[in-house]
Amino acid sequence: MKRFLNDPDDAVDEALAGFLTVHGADVRRLDTARVVVRRELVPNKVGLVSGGGSGHKPAFVGYVGDGLLDAAAVGDIFTSPTTATAVEAIRAADSGAGVLFLLGNYAGDVMNFTAAAEQARAAGHRVELVIVNDDIGAGEHVDPTIRRGVAGSVLVWKVAGALARAGGTLEAVRDTAQAVNAGTRTTGIALTACVVPGATRSTFAIGDDEMEIGVGLHGDRGVATVPLRRVDEVVDESTDQLLAALSVDRGDRVVTMVNGFGATPLLELYVAQRRLATVLEERGITLHRAYVGEFITCLEQAGMSLSILRVTEEVASLVDAPARAPHFVQC
Amino acid sequence: MKRFLNDPDDAVDEALAGFLTVHGADVRRLDTARVVVRRELVPNKVGLVSGGGSGHKPAFVGYVGDGLLDAAAVGDIFTSPTTATAVEAIRAADSGAGVLFLLGNYAGDVMNFTAAAEQARAAGHRVELVIVNDDIGAGEHVDPTIRRGVAGSVLVWKVAGALARAGGTLEAVRDTAQAVNAGTRTTGIALTACVVPGATRSTFAIGDDEMEIGVGLHGDRGVATVPLRRVDEVVDESTDQLLAALSVDRGDRVVTMVNGFGATPLLELYVAQRRLATVLEERGITLHRAYVGEFITCLEQAGMSLSILRVTEEVASLVDAPARAPHFVQC
Repeated sequence: MKRFLNDPDDAVDEALAGFLTVHGADVRRLDTARVVVRRELVPNKVGLVSGGGSGHKPAFVGYVGDGLLDAAAVGDIFTSPTTATAVEAIRAADSGAGVLFLLGNYAGDVMNFTAAAEQARAAGHRVELVIVNDDIGAGEHVDPTIRRGVAGSVLVWKVAGALARAGGTLEAVRDTAQAVNAGTRTTGIALTACVVPGATRSTFAIGDDEMEIGVGLHGDRGVATVPLRRVDEVVDESTDQLLAALSVDRGDRVVTMVNGFGATPLLELYVAQRRLATVLEERGITLHRAYVGEFITCLEQAGMSLSILRVTEEVASLVDAPARAPHFVQC
Repeated sequence: MKRFLNDPDDAVDEALAGFLTVHGADVRRLDTARVVVRRELVPNKVGLVSGGGSGHKPAFVGYVGDGLLDAAAVGDIFTSPTTATAVEAIRAADSGAGVLFLLGNYAGDVMNFTAAAEQARAAGHRVELVIVNDDIGAGEHVDPTIRRGVAGSVLVWKVAGALARAGGTLEAVRDTAQAVNAGTRTTGIALTACVVPGATRSTFAIGDDEMEIGVGLHGDRGVATVPLRRVDEVVDESTDQLLAALSVDRGDRVVTMVNGFGATPLLELYVAQRRLATVLEERGITLHRAYVGEFITCLEQAGMSLSILRVTEEVASLVDAPARAPHFVQC
C-alpha cells in the first residue's frame, strides 16, 4: 500500500502537527497529552468531548470548534486513546458547567473513557457520558449494547454542540444527546477493504463483483458479502431498514447523512443521495436537511454509510444552528 | 472497478439531481442546459462563471455561491461542456455588470468556452475570459500556453469572487484573476491511476513501488515515474520547484493548498502540510493561510497536488473574505 507518509509510526503525530499549522489560531494541542482543544473556551458552557482512534479524519479533531466539540482525544490508528489522554481532554474542556463525553460504542473506547470519567469525577469534575450506537448494519434486532457508533456520532455532536452553545445544562445536553442517538440509525456498505499503515495486507478480502453489507469504520467485515448491485437497490434496501428501525412514518421529518469512507468519489455519494431523497419524498417524509460528504472515514476504504435521524422541531433547529470548526462550517 | 452507480451514462445527471436535493435552496439547474446557477444573483455584480468536465467534485458546482462562482457549466466525465452549455451559463450569470469566465487550460474547454464567449458577446453580453494555467508538473520552462489549469483554479475563483462581491468592475476582476493566476503554481503527484466510469481499465499502469510526478487532474500520466519516496522528500522537491518558479523570497507572504485527488486520506495530506509549513518557516516565508482537503479531485485517484500563491496585502484580504457555497464555506 503506497502512502504519502514518512515512518508510519509517526503518521498520527505528524498529521496533528500539520493540522495545527492550518488551524492553530482556533485550536491547540495540550503539552501533556495528545488532545486538541479550543483556544478559547466559553466560560460556564457545558464542555463537549469526544475522541477515538485515528484514521477517521476529519473526525475527531476537525470538529473541535464553536457549536461542536470543545476537545478531542486522539489515539493511534484505529486504537483508543489512553485513559490518561481522555482525562486530560475532560480537564481541558471543563469551563465550569461540567463535561459531556460523547463516545462511539467500541470496547476500547468505552473502557478507557469510562475510567477517565471516573478519575475526572474523583478530581472534582462533573462528567456525563453518552455512548453512541447508531449502527444497525447487523440488523435492528442486535443487542443495542453491542451496536457500534458510526457516522451518527457527527449528528449527535452537532445537536449537543448547539444546545451547549445555547446555554443548556449538563443534564439537558446529555438527555438531548441520548435522544438524538436513540433517533439515529446508520448502515454501512463497503466496496473495498483498507490497509492499516504499516500493515502489509488489507483488512479483508472481497471479490471484484462483491460488496460488503453492514460494515463499521475500521475496515472490518460486515454481516454479509453480496453480489454488487446498482446503487438505487442498495439505497432502497438500506433506507427501508433505517426507516423501519426508527418507525418513521408519513409526515415525519428527518435529517440524513451520506458519508463517504474515503475513496468513494463525491459524485457517487450524490447519486446515492438522489435515490435517498426520492424514496423519502415518495413516502411523504420531509427531508429537513441532508449532509453529503466525508464526515468520518475509514482511511482509503471505498464505501459509504447512510444515516437517518428523526427530528423533532427542537432538534431540527439545533441541527440548523451555526457551527464553525476546521472541517465543519455552517453559517 | 466497483462503484455506487446505476447506468454509468446517467452518473453525471443523477449526481447533479442528488446535489440539488441538498443545495436546491441556494442553487438551481437551468431547464435549458446542464448549468448550475445561484438562485439569487446580486444585481450589477460581475458574474463569475467556470465549468469543465465532471469527475472533479466538489468542483465545479460545489463552488457556486456567495463570494465565489455565480454559475458552473457541467460536462460529462473528463469532457468539456458544450459551447451551447457555456453560453447558457454566461447568460444566467449576467446581472448587468458583465461576466468573467474562469477556465482551466484544456484544449476542449478553451475551444468551447472561447466560442461561447464570442457568441455571448454577439448577443450583447460583456464577457472576459481568464485561462488558468498553474500546473508546472512538467517544469516552469514549459510554454505557459500549454500548461494545464489545476488546483490553482480554486484560489483564482476565491479571490476573483471576493473582489466581484466587493463591487469590482469587470476589468478589475479580470486583471486580479490574471494576477492571481500568474502568482500561483501547482504540482501534482499520483500514487495510482483512476478508472473512468464505464471503462474497464485504469488510465495508466504504475508499480507498487512507484509514484508519478507532474500529473494533472484526468488520470493522465505525468512527466516522470520515480521510486516511491518519503513524503517529506516529495514535499521538499515540490516546494523548491514552486518557490523558484514564483521567485518567492524571505519576507514574502503565501497562501498554500494541499489538495487530495480522491482516495488519499486527509491524514496523509496533513502530514504533507506539516512539511510544507516547516519548509516555508525555515526560509522565512510567511504562511498567510493554508487549505488542506479535497478541493478539485480526479475520481478515486490516490494522489495530491501542492499549490503556492504569492500574495500581496490586497490579495491576502480577498482570500480571507467570507464565502459560502455548497462545498466551500468560510465565515
